[in-house]
Amino acid sequence: MANLREQMTDLARKAQRAARVLGAAGSDRKNRALQAMADAVTGGQSRILAANGRDLEAARAAGLSGALLDRLTLNDRRLRDMAAGLLEIAALPDPVGEVDQEITRPNGLRVGRMRVPLGVIGMVYEARPNVTADAAGLCLKAGNAVILRGGSEALHSNQAIGGLVSEAVREAGLPAEAVQVVATPDRKAVEELLTLEGWIDCVIPRGGRDFLRWVAETATVPVIRHGEGNCHVYVDQTADPKMAEEIVFNAKVQRPGVCNAAETLLVHASEAPGLFPALLPRLVSAGVELRGCERTRALFPEAKAATEADWATEFLDLILAVKVVEDFDAALNHIARYGTGHSEAIVTSDYFRAERFLREVDAAAVLVNASTRFTDGGQFGLGAEIGISTQKLHARGPMGVRELTTTKFVVRGQGQIRS
Amino acid sequence: MANLREQMTDLARKAQRAARVLGAAGSDRKNRALQAMADAVTGGQSRILAANGRDLEAARAAGLSGALLDRLTLNDRRLRDMAAGLLEIAALPDPVGEVDQEITRPNGLRVGRMRVPLGVIGMVYEARPNVTADAAGLCLKAGNAVILRGGSEALHSNQAIGGLVSEAVREAGLPAEAVQVVATPDRKAVEELLTLEGWIDCVIPRGGRDFLRWVAETATVPVIRHGEGNCHVYVDQTADPKMAEEIVFNAKVQRPGVCNAAETLLVHASEAPGLFPALLPRLVSAGVELRGCERTRALFPEAKAATEADWATEFLDLILAVKVVEDFDAALNHIARYGTGHSEAIVTSDYFRAERFLREVDAAAVLVNASTRFTDGGQFGLGAEIGISTQKLHARGPMGVRELTTTKFVVRGQGQIRS
Repeated sequence: MANLREQMTDLARKAQRAARVLGAAGSDRKNRALQAMADAVTGGQSRILAANGRDLEAARAAGLSGALLDRLTLNDRRLRDMAAGLLEIAALPDPVGEVDQEITRPNGLRVGRMRVPLGVIGMVYEARPNVTADAAGLCLKAGNAVILRGGSEALHSNQAIGGLVSEAVREAGLPAEAVQVVATPDRKAVEELLTLEGWIDCVIPRGGRDFLRWVAETATVPVIRHGEGNCHVYVDQTADPKMAEEIVFNAKVQRPGVCNAAETLLVHASEAPGLFPALLPRLVSAGVELRGCERTRALFPEAKAATEADWATEFLDLILAVKVVEDFDAALNHIARYGTGHSEAIVTSDYFRAERFLREVDAAAVLVNASTRFTDGGQFGLGAEIGISTQKLHARGPMGVRELTTTKFVVRGQGQIRS
Repeated sequence: MANLREQMTDLARKAQRAARVLGAAGSDRKNRALQAMADAVTGGQSRILAANGRDLEAARAAGLSGALLDRLTLNDRRLRDMAAGLLEIAALPDPVGEVDQEITRPNGLRVGRMRVPLGVIGMVYEARPNVTADAAGLCLKAGNAVILRGGSEALHSNQAIGGLVSEAVREAGLPAEAVQVVATPDRKAVEELLTLEGWIDCVIPRGGRDFLRWVAETATVPVIRHGEGNCHVYVDQTADPKMAEEIVFNAKVQRPGVCNAAETLLVHASEAPGLFPALLPRLVSAGVELRGCERTRALFPEAKAATEADWATEFLDLILAVKVVEDFDAALNHIARYGTGHSEAIVTSDYFRAERFLREVDAAAVLVNASTRFTDGGQFGLGAEIGISTQKLHARGPMGVRELTTTKFVVRGQGQIRS
């Protein structure tokens, strides 16, 4: 244990040293490193696939399920996507060094805020090995050193990717320790990462509810939490029924297993009779299980009865809770009570209620007349994303390169002293 | 204990309810509440002073020292300042509701970021009761509900101020629970505040090193840390000696007990012989104890010998560590090793080194040719400040009203779905 702490502190020490170099590196040099990383993934394909084969073999032996095996599997196409992702990151604008909000004070001091890297980032995530390359690329672009700790099932894949990428960074003239992968499968290593104050500037955990809770309890370093999405679509009085139908269907069915998929449909009492006859059978045909309130079931008896727990559940599956609400305020109250602050949408033609929804609903993303599925770094124009933050401090919603930076005050004087 | 948890959860529940109303309240209404708060402090002077008298009596009985007693003491002037501070906050611009970085995506979606309140803030601080009014005012201006927990020595003063201010908020038509003061002196109440996930959006602790460490270990809610300032002034080769002398003197002597005072002077080897003869005797005359490296003592034998610990100490007193460094990089390395990331200044005439210092030194504020004492919300043009953050996430450096807010993505569509 003491030994593990020493190992992790050593990683962090090297990362901190690398971060100082990265922080001062210009965009050209970082972009060359990103291109080299992309080449390394392409050139190292056989090495990565061999390592992935070992992980898959162990996973099958351990009886992992089909969906998990699929997430773990790498192949030609996935490696091409990985390399393409790194090149996309190279093409993004570099926020580091920008100064904004500069003002000149009455005493002549010029005070601005310069965007600078966070420093050393710890990234703790689960099975998908492509996160290793994405996270390494995004952190490097923002000038940060990163310590990566993926799921133990993907250990060999992550080490192969990390090794190639780190070597590419070194060949491009930046420190290899800009990207480090934790080598031990020991889960205690995560505990050490979470408590390395003074060494690690921020940990970004991605995972399920229990894991995130454990992180919150364990961490003494700052954490950016990527939580669940119990997302709602509220169909308001005055909503265009066809638009509402398309948005609800898209939000639930297009990709049900992700955090920005809708989990509960709220419908204004006066809209339900017009909306349900087309929408609900279409959802059922698409394999969606409906769990409705009493008023929903009065209009559409095929729906199962919803329980209290259904309103609070992120199904991540083809299940939709449906509730008829008396009015706009009842919808807002329901969202305030059960929402997880991820993505909330309204379908409406009413200007005032659209504005109130945007202003009053407390979530990382609030949408008017658009599917919740748009909450995504790419869709919002940020480029690649490292995740979607559901916390309020620092970064909220999709996090791109810019959200992996911080600011400092830069002050230019001519000898001013304070009186 | 279970009972205390229930009490604190109850405060937080009320605060959350109040926060929903405050979040939707316009600037006019919030400003009227701030004016009413100022009037309440003025009108309630005798009640506040009576409560303060009880605290002072208990503090004297407990043998509190002069400086602590002074910080605890309220009088006419301090109450006038408190009221004036609230009126200044009313006059500041309101950031809530601003939308920036709005873009239109190729599919026609308009995606912007709206500035919104954090929600419920817990504020944990020490003796000075004026923080109660300042923090209440800043949080309210930003649309947040606040739960205040000052030092137990100031319990009666804080309750008197909190009670008056909260009543004034209610009379101005906003919820009284926008401002709540924790009534119990039990320190376990702070532990409860720090673990009320889902109820409290952020805790801002102010205090000494041990207290902040305990907070980091205990908290499961997000924390904005206000840490120490081991600040440096580096006098570079080419610095104007007179400018350097004035800046160093100001940074050390003008107010030595605060976090933006300088604690260590670094001097380029070629500048030391020109700088020391005027500067060091002047510091000594002002009562400053000098603790120098060997090269410093060779030039100025009156200085005591500095120990390793001196480089790492925030003296908060008339003590200055002095080190002669070989070159610019040695100064940067010293700051990287011993600095606490608060405020770091260089005195130089060299353009390239000024720019490198601004870019490469990792601190909340980096200053060229100006005293570290300028790191302050008022001096930086933010208006009043709730503290100075030394962490990198969310807010760094002086925190004003804007830093007490977050953003959310607001998306306006015309029926877009994701394909």
